[in-house]
Amino acid sequence: MGKGLPKRSEDYSLWYNELVKRADLAENSPVRGCMVIKPYGYSIWEKMQAEIDRMFKETGHSNAYFPLFIPKSYLSKEADHVEGFAKECAVVTHYRLKNDENGNGVVVDPDAKLEEELIVRPTSETVIWSTYKNWIQSYRDLPVLVNQWANVVRWEMRTRLFLRTAEFLWQEGHTAHATKKEAIAESIQMMEVYARFAEQFMAMPVVRGIKSESERFAGAVETYCIEALMQDGKALQAGTSHFLGQNFAKAFDVKFTSKEGKLEHVWGTSWGVSTRLMGALIMAHSDDQGLVLPPKLAPIQVVIVPIYRGEEQLEVIREKASGIIADLRAKGVSVKFDDRDAFKPGYKFAEWELKGVPVRLAMGPKDLENNSVEIARRDTGVKEIFSLEGSISEKVETLLEDIQSSIYSKALVFRDEKTTPVDSYDEFKQMLDEKGGFISAHWDGTAETEEKIKQETKATIRCMIFNGDDEEGTCIYSGKPSARRVLFARAY
Amino acid sequence: MGKGLPKRSEDYSLWYNELVKRADLAENSPVRGCMVIKPYGYSIWEKMQAEIDRMFKETGHSNAYFPLFIPKSYLSKEADHVEGFAKECAVVTHYRLKNDENGNGVVVDPDAKLEEELIVRPTSETVIWSTYKNWIQSYRDLPVLVNQWANVVRWEMRTRLFLRTAEFLWQEGHTAHATKKEAIAESIQMMEVYARFAEQFMAMPVVRGIKSESERFAGAVETYCIEALMQDGKALQAGTSHFLGQNFAKAFDVKFTSKEGKLEHVWGTSWGVSTRLMGALIMAHSDDQGLVLPPKLAPIQVVIVPIYRGEEQLEVIREKASGIIADLRAKGVSVKFDDRDAFKPGYKFAEWELKGVPVRLAMGPKDLENNSVEIARRDTGVKEIFSLEGSISEKVETLLEDIQSSIYSKALVFRDEKTTPVDSYDEFKQMLDEKGGFISAHWDGTAETEEKIKQETKATIRCMIFNGDDEEGTCIYSGKPSARRVLFARAY
Repeated sequence: MGKGLPKRSEDYSLWYNELVKRADLAENSPVRGCMVIKPYGYSIWEKMQAEIDRMFKETGHSNAYFPLFIPKSYLSKEADHVEGFAKECAVVTHYRLKNDENGNGVVVDPDAKLEEELIVRPTSETVIWSTYKNWIQSYRDLPVLVNQWANVVRWEMRTRLFLRTAEFLWQEGHTAHATKKEAIAESIQMMEVYARFAEQFMAMPVVRGIKSESERFAGAVETYCIEALMQDGKALQAGTSHFLGQNFAKAFDVKFTSKEGKLEHVWGTSWGVSTRLMGALIMAHSDDQGLVLPPKLAPIQVVIVPIYRGEEQLEVIREKASGIIADLRAKGVSVKFDDRDAFKPGYKFAEWELKGVPVRLAMGPKDLENNSVEIARRDTGVKEIFSLEGSISEKVETLLEDIQSSIYSKALVFRDEKTTPVDSYDEFKQMLDEKGGFISAHWDGTAETEEKIKQETKATIRCMIFNGDDEEGTCIYSGKPSARRVLFARAY
Repeated sequence: MGKGLPKRSEDYSLWYNELVKRADLAENSPVRGCMVIKPYGYSIWEKMQAEIDRMFKETGHSNAYFPLFIPKSYLSKEADHVEGFAKECAVVTHYRLKNDENGNGVVVDPDAKLEEELIVRPTSETVIWSTYKNWIQSYRDLPVLVNQWANVVRWEMRTRLFLRTAEFLWQEGHTAHATKKEAIAESIQMMEVYARFAEQFMAMPVVRGIKSESERFAGAVETYCIEALMQDGKALQAGTSHFLGQNFAKAFDVKFTSKEGKLEHVWGTSWGVSTRLMGALIMAHSDDQGLVLPPKLAPIQVVIVPIYRGEEQLEVIREKASGIIADLRAKGVSVKFDDRDAFKPGYKFAEWELKGVPVRLAMGPKDLENNSVEIARRDTGVKEIFSLEGSISEKVETLLEDIQSSIYSKALVFRDEKTTPVDSYDEFKQMLDEKGGFISAHWDGTAETEEKIKQETKATIRCMIFNGDDEEGTCIYSGKPSARRVLFARAY
């Protein structure tokens, strides 16, 4: 483990990178911009996946799988979409290597050039809508409610583990509906699913919102989003849900016969969250000692560290612990008994703190004398001596619930404290620099003003709050009329 | 649904293709050689994944994720490996598209050529062992027991849904060990895990075996496999587990300090099963009416079809059914109540037969009179009238267990009947043509003989049976001494 982590207050960015590596979450791979998700990091992602997948199925969706490759010409079929995605993508041009004639390993075989290049999917609307064309003929075939868990590639020049990588893992839902109303309701429902997941499982409060036109998904009519605030005061887009109108249906000629016998274009949505959520989870709660994980997503919820001299003492502790472990497991709590002999208790404490295990039980000679155990919670660091005559498993269960809600509340208080309404551009800039966080301000609704503010301050419009106030006002930048406040922030 | 399926006896291959499409399992995509796995097919794959993943975790493995792309030079580092995999692969040469100057959509931007081409992984040994180099320093870091669920690409010229596709989904386990003995034990353990999964969940008997040198994985010292027999008498390799020796450790310089303080190369294994298992599952049990699914992998285990005239009768049936559904679900049985009004019962019967639902309950006016239900099992087609005074859920539970074991037994009897020992090449050829299946024959152990038999008969050595007889004999082809019999078959 080596020395401690860098401090958040001194170098937030370095703290994040080091934490991701040292807590065994992920690391850079030999392939530029691609990461390796390590077993501990992946086990958190698996817990996220399981919950999200359950929520999708509860809302009527099924999983399927579509090709990794997209024929180049498909990208061009939806005009906005190609503008948004063609720029950064991995292009497959050949399908064979051959031995180099000069003996220098293998080279691309020029005879194996593809007639049409294939793009490694940056997102799958095009290939999926070309498939939906065959699946949908009648209103009886609708809605189509499909999701896929997949890897996608967007060629990013500047990458950061989990937050922005060339390849990332995600899910992408793609639905088709008979009416505009249903499709909009679906997009909003999925934003709500994401928000519930973020709040109830990641313990991360989010703003439900609508993107400005320039921040909209390429090909969407409306983009709904959830936006979270990180501890350094920067915002992070944690999930998006797009109402696609009939754009992709028109681009891929997907029509259905309505109940009334009319041939109409289908209405669509798409929505996704990715391994970026891992970055959000890490940054939302963790501290200078390491990860702080919400119990609902922690691969190990409780660690038991024995403090002993000699095998005999370890055996006594092991026996006492085994009852606790059985009780906890019966309640569905995951427990690890850390009896590694090569490491001292202090080292183990630091390691499990680094890895964010929510509750630590320690049992040593004094505890054996007093028939007690020390219970420490990771989020606050508070320790407590608890008698073994009480029910440890109930105590721990309550504590896990308390930690889950406490870290949510802490993040919510932080977010609210860092959300500032301003009424002038000077105040806007001052708050942005001094306080960070979300700045709620009036905006004239033009892409021009948005772009100027972005260039001058690096702040972007994160969203209009969904179902937020419609109080009119004056744009802080142009002085023109504004229909409502929007949230600005510097963002990941 | 249209007309019936082609008959297996008339055109097995067409029967398979049509079944895969009509049962909504998969279809060809617009991308050559890549398939779309449809929701119903994917839900079977999800059930497979869940069980396999559980078995991996029970044997101490964790999941992780490694990059999709492999730098071209990595492939060359292990000499056999590059020979085996470099020939058919998707090569990424560029990372950007741009608008065509003549307005013809987008074209590859020649300025965005990669310095080193990237290969879309056909398998991940190279990129994973290059990562393990950083993970492993000491014997304390061993074993590394990691698996990943991923997509891979092998550029196949002739593809068939599930059985052979350019892109497919799979899991690939990659482990590293301190000793040769441990690594061999791991390879054999994983073959055994695959065999247990095939037999206990897919209800598909398999031969556990060892591959001949020419059928070995490119880069392996030994390849263990499970081989199944399909209904047309052709064999199908359903899973492989490789003992890699120190080949990849040497290629990527992965060493560890042993307990004795010596620097040694690490020993490795890798093992995988893929969506090919879907093809095996379909071909092992299905019939001319459609899929026959083992209950343990059926997404819908029981379908209830009401036979009614008018809403009132439907309501009475619905009420009777609701109790049955609740009881079944309480036992963990998945049930669908098919009350679609647009389709007649006969159509529904045929549809659920096509989709392989193991048990069908039908309830009509007569059943209401007699307080009974008709129970039909998919595998044998046998129907039975059952009084509602008995426990339907217990009856169904027993029936599901019986179907699971019956279809296994049926496949086992078929396999055993189709396994023929022969002692001459004439008999070999005759049996192969007339009877098909596995032919057990003596072989002199040379690649030359193996190749000649393959060229002359299209039969390949599927495996030496693991822990099989070591009875010596004479090669049916060359007349030279043979150490043991091996299994030949024509194969998928």
